[in-house]
Amino acid sequence: MAGSTFGTLFQITTWGESHGKALGVVIDGCPAGLSLCEQDIQKYLNRRKPGQSNITTPRKEDDKVEIMSGVFEGKTTGTPISLLVPNTSQKSSDYSEIASYYRPGHADYTFDAKYGFRDYRGGGRSSGRETIGRVAAGAIALKILEEMGISVCAYTHSIGPVTADLTAFDKEAITSTATCMPDRAADEKALSYLKECMENKDSSGGIVECRIQGLPAGIGEPVFEKLDANLAKAMMSIGAVKAVEIGDGMKVSASKGSENNDPFIMQNGTVSKKTNHAGGILGGISDGSDILLRAHFKPTPSIFRKQETINKCGENIEVEIKGRHDPIIVPRAVVVVEAMAALTILDLCMVNMSTRLDYLKEFYK
Amino acid sequence: MAGSTFGTLFQITTWGESHGKALGVVIDGCPAGLSLCEQDIQKYLNRRKPGQSNITTPRKEDDKVEIMSGVFEGKTTGTPISLLVPNTSQKSSDYSEIASYYRPGHADYTFDAKYGFRDYRGGGRSSGRETIGRVAAGAIALKILEEMGISVCAYTHSIGPVTADLTAFDKEAITSTATCMPDRAADEKALSYLKECMENKDSSGGIVECRIQGLPAGIGEPVFEKLDANLAKAMMSIGAVKAVEIGDGMKVSASKGSENNDPFIMQNGTVSKKTNHAGGILGGISDGSDILLRAHFKPTPSIFRKQETINKCGENIEVEIKGRHDPIIVPRAVVVVEAMAALTILDLCMVNMSTRLDYLKEFYK
Amino acid sequence: MAGSTFGTLFQITTWGESHGKALGVVIDGCPAGLSLCEQDIQKYLNRRKPGQSNITTPRKEDDKVEIMSGVFEGKTTGTPISLLVPNTSQKSSDYSEIASYYRPGHADYTFDAKYGFRDYRGGGRSSGRETIGRVAAGAIALKILEEMGISVCAYTHSIGPVTADLTAFDKEAITSTATCMPDRAADEKALSYLKECMENKDSSGGIVECRIQGLPAGIGEPVFEKLDANLAKAMMSIGAVKAVEIGDGMKVSASKGSENNDPFIMQNGTVSKKTNHAGGILGGISDGSDILLRAHFKPTPSIFRKQETINKCGENIEVEIKGRHDPIIVPRAVVVVEAMAALTILDLCMVNMSTRLDYLKEFYK
Amino acid sequence: MAGSTFGTLFQITTWGESHGKALGVVIDGCPAGLSLCEQDIQKYLNRRKPGQSNITTPRKEDDKVEIMSGVFEGKTTGTPISLLVPNTSQKSSDYSEIASYYRPGHADYTFDAKYGFRDYRGGGRSSGRETIGRVAAGAIALKILEEMGISVCAYTHSIGPVTADLTAFDKEAITSTATCMPDRAADEKALSYLKECMENKDSSGGIVECRIQGLPAGIGEPVFEKLDANLAKAMMSIGAVKAVEIGDGMKVSASKGSENNDPFIMQNGTVSKKTNHAGGILGGISDGSDILLRAHFKPTPSIFRKQETINKCGENIEVEIKGRHDPIIVPRAVVVVEAMAALTILDLCMVNMSTRLDYLKEFYK
Repeated sequence: MAGSTFGTLFQITTWGESHGKALGVVIDGCPAGLSLCEQDIQKYLNRRKPGQSNITTPRKEDDKVEIMSGVFEGKTTGTPISLLVPNTSQKSSDYSEIASYYRPGHADYTFDAKYGFRDYRGGGRSSGRETIGRVAAGAIALKILEEMGISVCAYTHSIGPVTADLTAFDKEAITSTATCMPDRAADEKALSYLKECMENKDSSGGIVECRIQGLPAGIGEPVFEKLDANLAKAMMSIGAVKAVEIGDGMKVSASKGSENNDPFIMQNGTVSKKTNHAGGILGGISDGSDILLRAHFKPTPSIFRKQETINKCGENIEVEIKGRHDPIIVPRAVVVVEAMAALTILDLCMVNMSTRLDYLKEFYK
Repeated sequence: MAGSTFGTLFQITTWGESHGKALGVVIDGCPAGLSLCEQDIQKYLNRRKPGQSNITTPRKEDDKVEIMSGVFEGKTTGTPISLLVPNTSQKSSDYSEIASYYRPGHADYTFDAKYGFRDYRGGGRSSGRETIGRVAAGAIALKILEEMGISVCAYTHSIGPVTADLTAFDKEAITSTATCMPDRAADEKALSYLKECMENKDSSGGIVECRIQGLPAGIGEPVFEKLDANLAKAMMSIGAVKAVEIGDGMKVSASKGSENNDPFIMQNGTVSKKTNHAGGILGGISDGSDILLRAHFKPTPSIFRKQETINKCGENIEVEIKGRHDPIIVPRAVVVVEAMAALTILDLCMVNMSTRLDYLKEFYK
Repeated sequence: MAGSTFGTLFQITTWGESHGKALGVVIDGCPAGLSLCEQDIQKYLNRRKPGQSNITTPRKEDDKVEIMSGVFEGKTTGTPISLLVPNTSQKSSDYSEIASYYRPGHADYTFDAKYGFRDYRGGGRSSGRETIGRVAAGAIALKILEEMGISVCAYTHSIGPVTADLTAFDKEAITSTATCMPDRAADEKALSYLKECMENKDSSGGIVECRIQGLPAGIGEPVFEKLDANLAKAMMSIGAVKAVEIGDGMKVSASKGSENNDPFIMQNGTVSKKTNHAGGILGGISDGSDILLRAHFKPTPSIFRKQETINKCGENIEVEIKGRHDPIIVPRAVVVVEAMAALTILDLCMVNMSTRLDYLKEFYK
Repeated sequence: MAGSTFGTLFQITTWGESHGKALGVVIDGCPAGLSLCEQDIQKYLNRRKPGQSNITTPRKEDDKVEIMSGVFEGKTTGTPISLLVPNTSQKSSDYSEIASYYRPGHADYTFDAKYGFRDYRGGGRSSGRETIGRVAAGAIALKILEEMGISVCAYTHSIGPVTADLTAFDKEAITSTATCMPDRAADEKALSYLKECMENKDSSGGIVECRIQGLPAGIGEPVFEKLDANLAKAMMSIGAVKAVEIGDGMKVSASKGSENNDPFIMQNGTVSKKTNHAGGILGGISDGSDILLRAHFKPTPSIFRKQETINKCGENIEVEIKGRHDPIIVPRAVVVVEAMAALTILDLCMVNMSTRLDYLKEFYK
C-alpha cells in the first residue's frame, strides 16, 4: 500500500533511504499565504542532526534542505511543497557485511519477508533518516500552528532510570542540553548513565513527552478519527516507539473514577478543568486544556556486543555490529515527536472547519 | 470529517447513538464466498452485552443483529454487508437531567464545543453502545482470519491492582468468568476489589491484553501505515483507552539494548526469535512471532458520588449521576479489543497482497 | 476494495441489493445544525420512483425512507446519518431464470467473473435500485447547498433523436412531464418515440444535463481532484452512463481557440465571462459562472426481444428477458444526476475551507 | 486538500511548477522486484517533450529524469520511488507581463480566486508541465502492466475536423508522425489544417483515443469505484480535457437497446462478445474485451490574436499573448492519456486481489 502518506487535508508523503541520493517529502494541502524559507525548516532539521554531542553518532550528516516547489515570492502558493535533503556523507561500504544477516531488533528480516529483498545500506527505508521528511514537513505545520496561537513542545522525559523533574521545568534546557531534558540536573545524571551504557557496549531506552498548548476545544473527530487515536498512530509510526500514553496514560488502569475524573470549573469566564488526568482529550475531542502525551522509545538495537542471530541462508550465527550508532535515540527523536504531533493536530484543525452548517454559511456568504 | 470509517480495503462504517432507533455498521470490501449467518455475529455481540454479572450494568440490552445486505444463499457476495441492531430498552427519560450539565470524564462538553449541541441521551454517539458496530464487523473479520489460520484472543490482564497470572493461562476462563480473566483466582480477587469500589460509589480501570497468533511475517506497511501504528490507532479509538503498548511496551524505555533485542534463531527450519520483547513487530512489520498488545482503560467516569462540574450556563455546580452504569468497562471491552485488532490485521493482510511484482504476475497469469 | 464510499469530508456509503431486505446509506461528515426530517429526503426519492407514467416500469416500489441516526430534536448532530429504505414489493421468483445465463448489456457476467457468483435477483447490487442511497444522501447535500445559496438543477436534455429546446427553458415541466424535459413540445415528441420503441420491444438512450448556479469561484483542487474530474467520476459511476461532458464538451475537439476561449469581462463590479464554453470550470476550479455538464445514458439493456448470449455452462443460447423494465432510464436518472452533482460540489466546498492561511487564522482566532 | 495524489494502492503524488527548480513525482506502493532504470522512464518523457516538430512549441525542454529513491541494485524495493526532472530552460522574464491580467481559457483567474495569488510564471502549477510527473509514474505502471500481459495504447483520433482512419491502423505511425495519428494520410491532412490555424494565429482541439488490451474480466469495483468512473476521473484530470467517452460513448444516447447490447458468445472456449459497444466495461467492471476510451481536448488557449479580458484591478482590457505555445495539445497529450490509463488500471488490478475469500486463503496458506 501507499504507507508513506500521512494526513487528510494537510497531507505529507515522505521518500528516501538512508544511503540513497537524497531524502525528501512532498507536502500537499499546505494553505496558501504562509511566509516560508529554507531556514524555517533547517532549524528543525538541525535539532535532529547527529554529531552534536558525545551521545549521538559521530557520523557527519549535513542535512541541508532545499525547497523545490510550492513557494513563490517567499510565500506558499497552496500547491505541493517538495523538500529535498541530499545524502552527502553516507559510506555504503560500512554496511556490506550486514547484507548477509538479520540484525536483532532491526527491520532487516521483516523487510526481506515482505519484499523478497532489501536495500541493506544503513537500514534503507527503515533507517532513522526516514524521519528527515517528517521533521521538514513538521516544521511547516509548526509554523502554521504558531500563527494560529498553538504551540507544540516536546522534550526528553526520561532516559533509562533517570527522569526529569518537570515541576521545575527549564524550557531553555531542552534545546541546549545533550539529552534535551528540561532539567539540567537530570541531564547530567542521564549523561553518566549513558556513558556507562556505552562502556558496556550497550544502549538505553527513554521517554519523550509532548505538550500542546492553545488548542481550542472541539478538535478531533468522533469514533475512528479521534484526536488521541491519530496522535497514537502518529507516535507509534516513529521507528522505535513501543508504547504511547495520553494524559495519565497507563496509570489510569490502576486508578479509580473518583481519582481520574477531572472536575469542570469556570475560570475567568472560560470552561476549565481542576485537574488534567485526561491529557486534554475527552471522547477523542480536545477539551481546551493542554494536550499531554508520552512516547516510549526502545533502546537502540545497534549495540557493539556479540549477539546471536541468523543469516540469509538460515544458519544460526554470532555477529558483532560495527559502525557509528547512537547509544540512545531519544534526544534526536524529540523533534520528530514534535513534528508528528504538529502534523496531526494541524490536519484535524483543518478538518474541523466544516463541522457546523453555520461555519459553511458564514464562509460562503 | 468522516470519522466513522475504518480500514482501506476491508472498510467499515459505524453509525448510531445510544438512544436512537438502532445502531449499525456497513462492511465494504468483505471478500466474496464467506459462509455467514446472524449467529456468527451474534455470539460476539453477546460477549459485550451487559447484565451478565453483577459487575455490569443491570440494563437489559437485547442487541439482536440483523443482516440487511451483502449475503446471498448463505455466503457473502463481495458487496457491502449492512448490519443493524435495533435499540429496544433505552429509556431516554433517565437522561433528561444531564442535558443541562457536563459530566466529568465524559464527552458531553467536547461534543457541545465541536457541534454546538449534542444528543445527550445516554451519551449519544460517544456512548459505549457505539462499539456494537465494531464488534459486529469484527466478528466477520475474525471469521475470515480463522479461515486463514490466524487467531486473535483478548482477555482482561488486570483490574485495578489485581493482575492475572498469565503463566497458568486458563483460556476457558476468559469467556466464563465475570472479569474475562484467564485466571480464576485473579478473577475472584478482582471481583472483591470491584465490590469494594461499588460500595464506595467508585469505579475501576484495567488492562486488556490481546495476542494474535498465526500471522505470517511481512504484514504492515513501512513508515505511516506500520502494523503497530494501526493497532495503536485502533485501540486508542476505543472510548476509554488512554495508553497502548506493543510487546514489552512501557518497559522498553527503562530497558537496555542487550535486554530488549530479541535474538533470531532457526527453529524446525523456520525463522524464530529466542524472546519476543518486540511483540512480534519489527520496523512496523510482523516478524512471524505472536503479536502482543495491551490497552489501558480508564475507570468508568459515571460514578454515583457527588462531583463538581459546570452547567451549560457556565455555573459551577455539584451533581450526583444516576442511572445504571458498569463499575468497570474492561470485561465488556475485551471483545471490542479483539474486534479492532482483527479489523486492523485483516485489512493489512489484504493490502499486503500486491507487495511484490511476482504476486501480481502469479495472480494475473 | 471499499467501492461503496464517496467523498472526502462529506462522505457517503451506500449498501443494499435490488431484492435484499432494504437499501440504505450512511452519511458521515454532515455538518451539525441542519434541520432535517424524512420528508426532506422523501421528496427526492419520489422523483426516482417508478410507476409514475407509462414510460417507467409498472413495478410498485414504495421506497419510504427512515432516518435511523444522526438527527436529534429535528437537527443533524454532526454524527453519521443512517437512512434506510425497506424493500417491500420485490418478487424474487421473477428472476429465477436469469440465474443461469448472462444478460447482454448487464453486469451479470462481470460480477460472476469478479466474485465467483452473484445475487442474481433483479441485478443484485448492480441494479438501478442502488441509486436510492445516492438520492437519499444527495437530498441532504442539496438542502445544505440551498442554505449556502447554491442550486443544482438536472433535466432531460434529449431522448433518442429528440432534444429539448433549452432556449425556452420551462423549469416547471422538469418535474411535471413524464420525460423530465424542460420543454413540453419535446416531451410529447419523445413520448411518441418511446411508444414506438416499446412497440418494437426496444429501448432508448438519452442525455441528462445539469446546471449548478451560485457556486463561487475557487472550488475544486488542482491536479487530480479537479472539480470536473470529480464530477466526471460521479457521473460515470451511475450505472448506464457512457460519456460525460463539461461545458461545450465533445464540441471542443473540433473547435478553435478563438471560438472556445471565453473572454473575461467585468459585470456590475464582478468578474464574469462573455461566453461560457468552459462550463464554469478553468484548470479544474470553478470560475463563478454556471457549471454545466451532460451525462450520456445508454439504452436500457433489458429489452423483450430474443437476444443471443451464453449461459453459465459456456453454451451459446437465445434468451427472451421477461419482467417489468423501463424503456428508458433517463427520466428516473435525472434526480440521480442532481444528487451526485450535489454530493461532489458540497464535498469540495468543505475541502476548500482550509485553502488559505488567512482562513485558518480567522476561524481559530 | 491534497489534490496531487492519485490511486489507492499504487499511489502517486506529483509536485512542481512550470518555472520552479524541478518537477517530480513520488510513487508509493510500487511492487518490489521490478527491473527499473532511468531509460525505462525517459523514453516516455521524450514522447511528451516539445520541439520535435513544427506543431509543437519551439521551447527546448530537456526533461531528464533522475531516480532519487526506491530502486536498489536495479530493482524496485517496494518503498517510495522519487523521480525528479530539473527545470533547465525556463525563462521567467517571458511571463512578467501576464502577472497583471487573466488569460482567457487559462487557470490564472481561478487560482487567484482560490489562493489569493498565484505563481504566474508559465502557468505555475496549472501548466502542462505538471504532467511530467504523471508520465514518469505512468512509465512504471506501463512496465508492470506489460509484465502482466496488459498493453495500453493511446493515439490521436482526430485533430479539428480531421479524423484518423482506424480500420487501417498503422501502429508505427503513432510514434513517428508529428500528430501521433495511426494513419499517415490523416496526419498530413491534420498538419495542413494546423498550419492554417497557426497562420490565423489560432489553435485547434482534438481527440485522443486509448485502447487497453489483455485486461482480464473482473477489474473495477462496484458503485463509486467503477473502472469507467476512475478512468473518467483520470482523463478529466488532464488539463484541457472537456469530455470523456467509454466505448460508443456519446453515441449511446441516440442508440437503441437492440443496437447497443453486445451479445455474449463463446469463442475458442472463452467468453467473448460479438460487438464491443460497451468498450469492455459492464457495470463498472471489465468484461475481458478491449477497453476503449476517448478524451476530448480543447484548443490551446494561448493564441496570438488580440483577446478581451480583465486585469487584476478589475478593468476590461485587450491583450496579445506572446511566447512559445503549441497550436494543439493533443500530440503531446497522447502519452499523458496512456500514463493516466495505466495508473488507473494497475491500481484497480492490485485492489482486486483480495476480492474473494479463496484468494486470501490461497495467498496465505
